[in-house]
Amino acid sequence: MPTTDDDGTVKTARPASRRAGHGRRDGAIFQLPWRQLRNPYRPFELASADEVEAIHLASLEILERIGIRFSLPAAREIFRKAGAQVDEDSMRVRIGGDIVAQALKTVPDSVTLETYNPARTVTLGRDKLVFATVLGPPYCHDIERGRRQGTLADYGDFIKLAQVFNIIHLVGGSPVEPGDIPVPIRHLDAVEVMLTLSDKIPYVFCQSQKRILDAFEMIAIARGISMDELAVKPSTYSIINTNSPLQYDLPMTEGVIEMARFGQPTLITPFTLAGATTPITMAGAIAQQNAEILAGVTLSQLVRPGAPILYGGATSNVDMRTGSPGYGSPESVRATFISGQLARRYGLPMRSSNFSGSTSADYQAAVESQLAAFAAIGAGANLLMHAAGWMEGGLCASFEKFVLDVEMLQMMAVWLEPLRIDKDTLALDVIEEVGPGGHFFGTAQTIEKYETAFYRPLVFNTKSHGQWVEDGKLDATARAHQVYLRALKEYQPPAFDPARREVLHAFVERRKAEGGAPLT
Amino acid sequence: MPTTDDDGTVKTARPASRRAGHGRRDGAIFQLPWRQLRNPYRPFELASADEVEAIHLASLEILERIGIRFSLPAAREIFRKAGAQVDEDSMRVRIGGDIVAQALKTVPDSVTLETYNPARTVTLGRDKLVFATVLGPPYCHDIERGRRQGTLADYGDFIKLAQVFNIIHLVGGSPVEPGDIPVPIRHLDAVEVMLTLSDKIPYVFCQSQKRILDAFEMIAIARGISMDELAVKPSTYSIINTNSPLQYDLPMTEGVIEMARFGQPTLITPFTLAGATTPITMAGAIAQQNAEILAGVTLSQLVRPGAPILYGGATSNVDMRTGSPGYGSPESVRATFISGQLARRYGLPMRSSNFSGSTSADYQAAVESQLAAFAAIGAGANLLMHAAGWMEGGLCASFEKFVLDVEMLQMMAVWLEPLRIDKDTLALDVIEEVGPGGHFFGTAQTIEKYETAFYRPLVFNTKSHGQWVEDGKLDATARAHQVYLRALKEYQPPAFDPARREVLHAFVERRKAEGGAPLT
Repeated sequence: MPTTDDDGTVKTARPASRRAGHGRRDGAIFQLPWRQLRNPYRPFELASADEVEAIHLASLEILERIGIRFSLPAAREIFRKAGAQVDEDSMRVRIGGDIVAQALKTVPDSVTLETYNPARTVTLGRDKLVFATVLGPPYCHDIERGRRQGTLADYGDFIKLAQVFNIIHLVGGSPVEPGDIPVPIRHLDAVEVMLTLSDKIPYVFCQSQKRILDAFEMIAIARGISMDELAVKPSTYSIINTNSPLQYDLPMTEGVIEMARFGQPTLITPFTLAGATTPITMAGAIAQQNAEILAGVTLSQLVRPGAPILYGGATSNVDMRTGSPGYGSPESVRATFISGQLARRYGLPMRSSNFSGSTSADYQAAVESQLAAFAAIGAGANLLMHAAGWMEGGLCASFEKFVLDVEMLQMMAVWLEPLRIDKDTLALDVIEEVGPGGHFFGTAQTIEKYETAFYRPLVFNTKSHGQWVEDGKLDATARAHQVYLRALKEYQPPAFDPARREVLHAFVERRKAEGGAPLT
Repeated sequence: MPTTDDDGTVKTARPASRRAGHGRRDGAIFQLPWRQLRNPYRPFELASADEVEAIHLASLEILERIGIRFSLPAAREIFRKAGAQVDEDSMRVRIGGDIVAQALKTVPDSVTLETYNPARTVTLGRDKLVFATVLGPPYCHDIERGRRQGTLADYGDFIKLAQVFNIIHLVGGSPVEPGDIPVPIRHLDAVEVMLTLSDKIPYVFCQSQKRILDAFEMIAIARGISMDELAVKPSTYSIINTNSPLQYDLPMTEGVIEMARFGQPTLITPFTLAGATTPITMAGAIAQQNAEILAGVTLSQLVRPGAPILYGGATSNVDMRTGSPGYGSPESVRATFISGQLARRYGLPMRSSNFSGSTSADYQAAVESQLAAFAAIGAGANLLMHAAGWMEGGLCASFEKFVLDVEMLQMMAVWLEPLRIDKDTLALDVIEEVGPGGHFFGTAQTIEKYETAFYRPLVFNTKSHGQWVEDGKLDATARAHQVYLRALKEYQPPAFDPARREVLHAFVERRKAEGGAPLT
């Protein structure tokens, strides 16, 4: 089966089940092959160079004059030793521009992550672009069973979808929270299921030092390496959300420190919502976001120079009529573009998000998601978090939206590919052969290429109205429901060494017997 | 009522009914004010300069060696006189590169269109961006009445929506075809209703010389100018679709000639679908598109040097499994970007389209529409045709999708606005006042700006799941239905001189009595 189209780019539909070396079955899902994407476009610049500099200088002033509250004493101690002004009563750390500048010298412009399957290696940074699943919702939804609290079974189903669809590069920790598992042991079950059901890059939640170390041990076991080796082999990633305005709480600060200590990348992403956790002016919101990120970058580099960090641009606004976050708002698009400019100024890779506030997988959800994907391209982002499945501003993971988002991401993979433009593809001989008023359907070129020339959709279609009515008038969401069920049926577990799997399970059992680990 | 937000940009919600100077009523639709948009972003370049040149040279070779079939003898005569090789038997015109180069010297880089209301003036070209309604579907749809053949009443309702929503700059000719009106007089009724119900830029269908001249006379009457004056005052626009491959049929060629003769802009848009009406390779499809456009540009400039033309990039592909056009395909996005590069090479304004193949206003429709809007930005397009309401690959106009697309376009208007970044908007004093862990809801700055700071949606919302269930679980399409009905209720006719209106009606009655005018 050919895997390249006329443009010389790999974008041929192929059955999901072949991905793992299995034979094709009837009705198999056709999709793009696994590969990292490259963004060929020059990013959008909404702010001038002077304006970017003004934001940078405002951030430095915030850090030096107003300061950031770090609740964790160990973090304040690290900053104090580095020369920052620490006020123990208010827990505020005031960080001089020289300390920030030094940190920015050592932070790398990319990081390469590996799992136990070397084929799943991805690089975060430069012109690369990768996608991670939704992460964190307590609820999940499908149109048959409705909205419900997530369970470990739902969690596993999302991990399976992440494994089936090649366009998903990284697993987001808890695509849905396994709410049926007690909190102290939830991370153990979640990471075990994640590592067992998928060989894609796993995620670590920064919920306490002990839980982070548990996850590190499990990831080391899965890779067959020691903890010392893990510390020089980036294998996982985590999000650090600041508690805006200007605060790093205990688990997040432990996260910055532990992730840096082990050389694992963190995506530092302030929870900056203009009008609520920042000034109502977007410029102020972005300056504050930038200050909060620079504080985390500085802490990480003080812990371990060279620790990888992604610039997390997720600034949006609140809907002033409801107080809800305006996920997918046009203001957030502008903030994303300018965040990209700041990330490039610092030479940092960037993370953005596929946010949507919609309560269903409808027109609103799609506009917001497609706009977020576009904002990622315009901003030059390297990692799109929540790329598939996020709904209701992150409260609910949707099985249908997962598949619909996969479709959108696959389309994006196609329009990110440069076209091959040469004598062969310009095809003047074919145009001459057909001539005015002719048809190209029957040309040798068309017959040779028709199976692989164009993107073949998963869910979207070009059916006539009559055919669509005959087929039951299923809208895209209803069709996605069928695809999600088929994908679960076609799922094949990754090749995971049985001996390591046994060690992993024994570790989980032991840690459960010890009572697991609480949140910070 | 304030009309600027913190960024100094005009983007405040205001009731539709105030647009025409009327007072606000309860439940009035809030929307952005009328204004032309500016695209602040540097366009995407998917092809290298060498590749753009290769496409250009391939097009010249198509024109010179293969030729274009012009069915209209008058057109062949114009080309013959200009030095082209004309084969009368095959009706093929082979156009030398020197003739094309001369035409490209005189074609303008923009055109400004006026109506009888000078406030509706728009410029097509340079960094400007404007939106026109859907154009041409035989069917229309709303979720209450279902899918049906369009009537003059439906046509009028779409024109009213075009008039109500400020983000719509131009009326597309027949947002739905008034299928209940006999063809010979349909253009008379359609143009009369268009000019009476809306003061926005009207559209002329190129269906025959006689029908074009009828429309010109009606537009001249509405503006209170003579036909001679019309010929120096661009007041309308039209699409020229080539009959690909490499053919200009009779009505389209009459259109190029008459529109040029009267100095009215045409959007020359080849119907190039890779795999059917062009080679299956996208590079070949784009080269053929470009050749077909250059042929039309050349004819127009031979008729009248300086006649305005827009470069119409609408190349897509067929779905090779169904033979249907792949409207909204990722291939079409790439073709749009490269079309933009070609338009810029020639210094031509560009037209693109909001295409969708979906049979309902669902997730698929939204992804395709948002992607088309994005492609327009990335391509640096100046006019987005079918910007609101297009469904089913152009077979059906949807009332709900019209409103949903308006929402998307309004959001786009916001993210096209640069942010104001200065001391006031960086707001360090506000950040200092609130400090770590505080809230910005209550600051003087927030209270001053909260009403106008952010985009206020028409249809989209940030409701909680509980509130959404309580409100009847209406998805975006169901909510759009309510907004479309409210918009029709709030519609106010434009101020149109009663004397001219009388003359216009008398003209229509006279021409109807004469039997109207047939298609070519």
